[in-house]
Amino acid sequence: MAEQEAGGRISQWRKGQARPELAGDLTRLLVRPDPDDPRLTERVRGVDQDGRPIETAVVVERPITLYLNRQEIVTMMSIGDFPDYLAVGFLLNQNMLKADDVIESIDFDDELGVVVVRTARETNYEEKLKKKVRTSGCAQGTVFGDLMEKFETVRFPEGAELRTSWLASLSQKINALPSLYLSAGAIHGCVLCEGDQPLVYMEDVGRHNAIDKIAGYMFLKGLVPDGKIFYTTGRLTSEMVIKTVQMGIPILISRSGFTAWGVDLARQAGLTLVGRAKGKRFIALSGEERIIYDVAPAALAEEDPRHQRKGSRGE
Amino acid sequence: MAEQEAGGRISQWRKGQARPELAGDLTRLLVRPDPDDPRLTERVRGVDQDGRPIETAVVVERPITLYLNRQEIVTMMSIGDFPDYLAVGFLLNQNMLKADDVIESIDFDDELGVVVVRTARETNYEEKLKKKVRTSGCAQGTVFGDLMEKFETVRFPEGAELRTSWLASLSQKINALPSLYLSAGAIHGCVLCEGDQPLVYMEDVGRHNAIDKIAGYMFLKGLVPDGKIFYTTGRLTSEMVIKTVQMGIPILISRSGFTAWGVDLARQAGLTLVGRAKGKRFIALSGEERIIYDVAPAALAEEDPRHQRKGSRGE
Repeated sequence: MAEQEAGGRISQWRKGQARPELAGDLTRLLVRPDPDDPRLTERVRGVDQDGRPIETAVVVERPITLYLNRQEIVTMMSIGDFPDYLAVGFLLNQNMLKADDVIESIDFDDELGVVVVRTARETNYEEKLKKKVRTSGCAQGTVFGDLMEKFETVRFPEGAELRTSWLASLSQKINALPSLYLSAGAIHGCVLCEGDQPLVYMEDVGRHNAIDKIAGYMFLKGLVPDGKIFYTTGRLTSEMVIKTVQMGIPILISRSGFTAWGVDLARQAGLTLVGRAKGKRFIALSGEERIIYDVAPAALAEEDPRHQRKGSRGE
Repeated sequence: MAEQEAGGRISQWRKGQARPELAGDLTRLLVRPDPDDPRLTERVRGVDQDGRPIETAVVVERPITLYLNRQEIVTMMSIGDFPDYLAVGFLLNQNMLKADDVIESIDFDDELGVVVVRTARETNYEEKLKKKVRTSGCAQGTVFGDLMEKFETVRFPEGAELRTSWLASLSQKINALPSLYLSAGAIHGCVLCEGDQPLVYMEDVGRHNAIDKIAGYMFLKGLVPDGKIFYTTGRLTSEMVIKTVQMGIPILISRSGFTAWGVDLARQAGLTLVGRAKGKRFIALSGEERIIYDVAPAALAEEDPRHQRKGSRGE
């Protein structure tokens, strides 16, 4: 596990540190949750159904205020493990940062909970910040002004495919990885995969933080969307579809269900949308042509019931 | 079921229609989900794990733009079944409407997806709308300026209690009710209860819409928080705790887990916070003194495994 990045925390990042090459090694997990990081959970005392005192772990949320140059953008509640990836991914997914923008520096002040992203080109986002849409995450998701601006221009990599053998293998691998979910619960996970290999596994109190952290990681590390598959524990809502499409990833998988607008948007974009993926079962409601049935479902085992608790209701 | 309000939709509401008395009948379900309402789900076609064509139901999301008098406040994605309760509940929970505000009218234009709440006293919320905090729902929750303004002043009704026999009975009743969750999935539920009786069961794509609809219902129908218990399928995050406290309800229960800030806030307010409530099992991390152990857990059955899929992961 020594080469994995787990629960890392940076305080400074400068241009030149950018895009450290990954040496092309996409055969192993690059980022995984770190359930043993004492900064990410808190032990709390209470009582159980018998009135007995118990102690349990709960996930920490801390406010992180994001500045883009001199502009305060938003305050996010996050577990706070990767403020740099979160900041950059949020800005990318909101179209406040373009693919050709040059990031000069990222500074994080742990004590103040402030992360500042500085770019070569400056823009004023006052106008964008005024236009808010409360979306359908389980909370009040906010979609700023032109989140959809980029959506219609995205072209997916050619030749992308999803083998049904990968699907079962991916859920199995992801379920078996140590995670904050397993140790404390009440958290979302998003995983960037290639074939049946999980590459980047991020967790956060909000699944939109988890997907933003992956977007930021891909940008800062120079990971391309070609050959990638995106896996989420949460529902396939409009926001998840919009963000996956904007990241250029052609395939989105979830254990959980669909919303109608999520399905509509996936079809508009030609995204492969696979939901209710549990063990050998799944439903695809968009982009079915990328699915290759390389294994008979009968040859696969049903999912271990221990995992059935995950991700059916809402997100 | 004739007396229940199910999937109702109003286009106009005028002062004088306000607070129709409930004739004190709190022994039955007043509002329930209506999975048969064709406006709330859509049939979509896709393929399954065998490549066979299937048709399935997915929940509809539609944008609803809320105006308070002449001020545009927010656009929310909702299933759209109760735009009036959603609008009023949102404004109450954001402290944009005070308990002593007089609502003159609520108009809903179904075609435009616009709901306008008009009050006797007008205020300008420009300033409040500028201050945004992205919270930890699964999406980017938005907490406006002074969401916490009211929090510290709330006093709960005296003598509130939670019997352990109610807990098991409530989950059982709620799980057995027909719902959009059972018919289409990917949705959250919130239930206002009294003793072991579910009273108002709202579902929505975002659980914050579900809680807001209940807050709006309570305000417009004149339901008091005394003796009430709030049940949610979602996680016990800071937002859920803040809203429950603001609604004056002393007890909050979830099948799902806790976040650290949710626990902190519940302790500050003296809210009874019960999570991971499944069948006879639960954990209480705040306000344990309201719990009355009136039944031995051994006397209760374990939860039917069919329900174990619900609500463990994230929200």
